[in-house]
Amino acid sequence: MLTKEELERFWAEASEKYLDHISIDCVVFGFHEGQMKVLMLKSNNEEAWYLPGGFVQVQEPIEKAADRILKERTGIDEVFLQQFRVFGDPDRNKIHNEMYKDKLPSKTNFFEQRFISIGYYALVDFIGVNPTPDAFSEICTWRDLADLPNFQLDHENIFKTALDTLRLQLNYQPIGYNLMPKEFTMPELQKLYETILDKKLDRRNFQRRMLGFGILNKLEQTRKGGAHKAPYLYSFDLDNYQAALKEGLKSGW
Amino acid sequence: MLTKEELERFWAEASEKYLDHISIDCVVFGFHEGQMKVLMLKSNNEEAWYLPGGFVQVQEPIEKAADRILKERTGIDEVFLQQFRVFGDPDRNKIHNEMYKDKLPSKTNFFEQRFISIGYYALVDFIGVNPTPDAFSEICTWRDLADLPNFQLDHENIFKTALDTLRLQLNYQPIGYNLMPKEFTMPELQKLYETILDKKLDRRNFQRRMLGFGILNKLEQTRKGGAHKAPYLYSFDLDNYQAALKEGLKSGW
Repeated sequence: MLTKEELERFWAEASEKYLDHISIDCVVFGFHEGQMKVLMLKSNNEEAWYLPGGFVQVQEPIEKAADRILKERTGIDEVFLQQFRVFGDPDRNKIHNEMYKDKLPSKTNFFEQRFISIGYYALVDFIGVNPTPDAFSEICTWRDLADLPNFQLDHENIFKTALDTLRLQLNYQPIGYNLMPKEFTMPELQKLYETILDKKLDRRNFQRRMLGFGILNKLEQTRKGGAHKAPYLYSFDLDNYQAALKEGLKSGW
Repeated sequence: MLTKEELERFWAEASEKYLDHISIDCVVFGFHEGQMKVLMLKSNNEEAWYLPGGFVQVQEPIEKAADRILKERTGIDEVFLQQFRVFGDPDRNKIHNEMYKDKLPSKTNFFEQRFISIGYYALVDFIGVNPTPDAFSEICTWRDLADLPNFQLDHENIFKTALDTLRLQLNYQPIGYNLMPKEFTMPELQKLYETILDKKLDRRNFQRRMLGFGILNKLEQTRKGGAHKAPYLYSFDLDNYQAALKEGLKSGW
């Protein structure tokens, strides 16, 4: 928990450095050992968890702000970060205001104002992330989607909206680069889709559809060492993958 | 063009009434006589056009602000309005600042600050709209997508991003309610898709795919009066349509 002096310093600096009324929250998804994970921070003030977030510097483009915030919490940059929704309920951060009201007079409390938060989601390489707490958290770590803690503020809604968006976007955008290893089998890719959608998919339909998108390269090698017939390995065709991110998958009109 | 006094009054009121740094811009699409249109305003200050927009009141949810702004310019409400992107380049409204700099000292100029704009798009009933200029425009009218004027600020980018989003969303969301009459033929619906996508579609594929989505009711009556065999009429199945808006069209995983 921060001392009164530390809070005062934080808020004085924040008022100078950041735009009023605008915040950014990031839903960072990773995939590890067949489980979908989300990066969260545990408040050092209460038994509640929140999403990585922050503010926009006075002269900073919002995309740069999102990149910076993500890098501060994960150590990685140049990540596929995508805006998915703005959260603009006037009371969305009232709880947060209450939390510090005994600590500081409201006029010097940067958090007391209304914040409209721009939601970004990211799909990242689980292995490459070095989770790092911020000034208001004691823990930053991956949480399993099947075992989520209590969320602070409206962060449960932000998380759920990101997941819904991701599920919808599976239908028209490629996914998997950053989440999968460089080379993978079709069943491994199918497992990623099944984990995100939280349902089983038909093996043959999945394979036919994925190959139809034209975003995979079938490699010469097969996966060695299993008891079964060695499965083929694939990698993403990055040119086609990038084009499909922009224009949608080939199943379109 | 507003007088200095009118500008002073506008800006003094705006500083009291609205949140700093946040604006909303709306890309309002309508469809009429086989043409796709967008609602625009002509500046009373220069030969340039802009999109309907405005600001968020101090205690107003952002969705309500977007509804209010749209109603002020069109007279209609309860429209399908969808957030599609936030525009947060720090220099995006510098041109606008310059325009009024001789009129007012910068500290009383509400427009002088940085604005991060939340983009919404709407698909509306062309016939029901009563285009109404705002304080900074002399004309509010529909412009044909094939004949667009010069845009102010970054509004060309906002418009293009909305159109790209709409085209991508055709692949996984239903469209047409609010744009089509209550009853329509399959070729009329196809014409809407072709206009938005700016390309011809195959008649049989279109029909098969549209029917596969399960969002159309085939009516008992046919369209009378043509030289050809009278085509079937359809209407939208609103329950399935709403569900598909939320969950994506049935072509999904």
